[in-house]
Amino acid sequence: MGPDPRELEGLLAFALHLAEQSEPAILPHFRAATAVTNKLEVDFDPVTVADTAAETVMRQLIGQRFPDHGIYGEEFGIKEGTSPYTWILDPIDGTRSFIFGSVVWTTLIGLNYEGTPVLGVMNQPYVRETFFGSPAGAFCRRDGADRRLSVRPAKQLSEALVTTTAPSLYKSPQEAAFLERMKATARNIRYDGDAYFYSLVAAGQVDIALDAGLQSYDIAPLVPIIEAAGGIVSTWSREPATHGGNIIAAASKDLYEEALTLLED
Amino acid sequence: MGPDPRELEGLLAFALHLAEQSEPAILPHFRAATAVTNKLEVDFDPVTVADTAAETVMRQLIGQRFPDHGIYGEEFGIKEGTSPYTWILDPIDGTRSFIFGSVVWTTLIGLNYEGTPVLGVMNQPYVRETFFGSPAGAFCRRDGADRRLSVRPAKQLSEALVTTTAPSLYKSPQEAAFLERMKATARNIRYDGDAYFYSLVAAGQVDIALDAGLQSYDIAPLVPIIEAAGGIVSTWSREPATHGGNIIAAASKDLYEEALTLLED
Repeated sequence: MGPDPRELEGLLAFALHLAEQSEPAILPHFRAATAVTNKLEVDFDPVTVADTAAETVMRQLIGQRFPDHGIYGEEFGIKEGTSPYTWILDPIDGTRSFIFGSVVWTTLIGLNYEGTPVLGVMNQPYVRETFFGSPAGAFCRRDGADRRLSVRPAKQLSEALVTTTAPSLYKSPQEAAFLERMKATARNIRYDGDAYFYSLVAAGQVDIALDAGLQSYDIAPLVPIIEAAGGIVSTWSREPATHGGNIIAAASKDLYEEALTLLED
Repeated sequence: MGPDPRELEGLLAFALHLAEQSEPAILPHFRAATAVTNKLEVDFDPVTVADTAAETVMRQLIGQRFPDHGIYGEEFGIKEGTSPYTWILDPIDGTRSFIFGSVVWTTLIGLNYEGTPVLGVMNQPYVRETFFGSPAGAFCRRDGADRRLSVRPAKQLSEALVTTTAPSLYKSPQEAAFLERMKATARNIRYDGDAYFYSLVAAGQVDIALDAGLQSYDIAPLVPIIEAAGGIVSTWSREPATHGGNIIAAASKDLYEEALTLLED
């Protein structure tokens, strides 16, 4: 028993509305002097005024419209709900990109039904494009038009375009070895795209997106986009990606299987 | 004897016109199936249909308007001129970003006067923003408005945001050691931005942009943007950046000097 498709359609429209409403909380702080604090002193994980302001706006809107829904947000944590639905919010994924003034940070909004992602939105308000996915398909909205997304897989890993957020996230020897083998095998690898890269798998541009140590809110909203475009996403040990961890998204089952063989040695 | 300031004003307007006219040659190929060929089999340096089409358009426009000007373009090489002016064209800087579907590729258009960069344009037609610099200042144009750019340097290297295109470009032991010391010293380092990062130094976002092995057309158009915003740019051995090579751009003289001490061991 999944959610009602007509209900999901309305929830997707609401998720797109959330994205739009979060924009005025974010954009004035982009490429402006912002208050940057470090959540962790060891790693560089800045949280900006924009990040907290955007999540506040979205939580308020959800609370008004769906007071029984749960919420799990990067900034303000968990609000338990009484319905099967939980909203997953990452107001600024790629905060490093945001701080550097680059344009590959995004706002992630996902909806889980009994713990399984059923729709997701990735919004980039400065570039002015919105990727979204649900059982009805994956799309990129720009200038008021929706373009349907579909994976376009390379035939094999040696021809694949591979992305990952940062080599420094591959901390264990096994993780580091996996990345090294991937670099040696794939056609090309690119860094520092965060969530953006997963939507580019859906868009048929990237063949494999990899990451180590993701949080649930980093990846759950992207799952419906990737899957509705024909891609596959899971942890490296083939568990659902919903809870984060070490993640692989691939444009085809063949590429996925070939990539995971690099985990063995 | 430099160029006449009023003449430069007209030439800057023409450079912005070139950028605009190149857009229809580029945008239809972005995130579409493109003909990708490898210039070098060893390194991944794809040249797209868009790249050659855009340079063709710009060379034609320059030839019609300024038949005596020289041209040096990434795709079609050198056309000798009889005037002191030479146009420097890199129709798609960051071709890897373009192929991956990311949005940090740019079109670079520079103008040298007797070998010295006097104005430069960096255009990103998908994001719809244009950075440009001349003796009259550095600006970012978006939605018809020009915002003046100014560097905003960190106090010291330990607080600096540093960027570079790819660790793999640091080929010699000296180059690799420099990058390692920079990673260990700076606050944070980010990869895969190509020309975009240099304009972000001008925009006050990035403190230091570094690269190894740049071509003239990768950097000459950015020099007037960086300098007009108050930044400094040269080779690692303090020669003019005009001819490419190993390049450093910094938001202040202090950061520049502190960074270059890391070259010594």
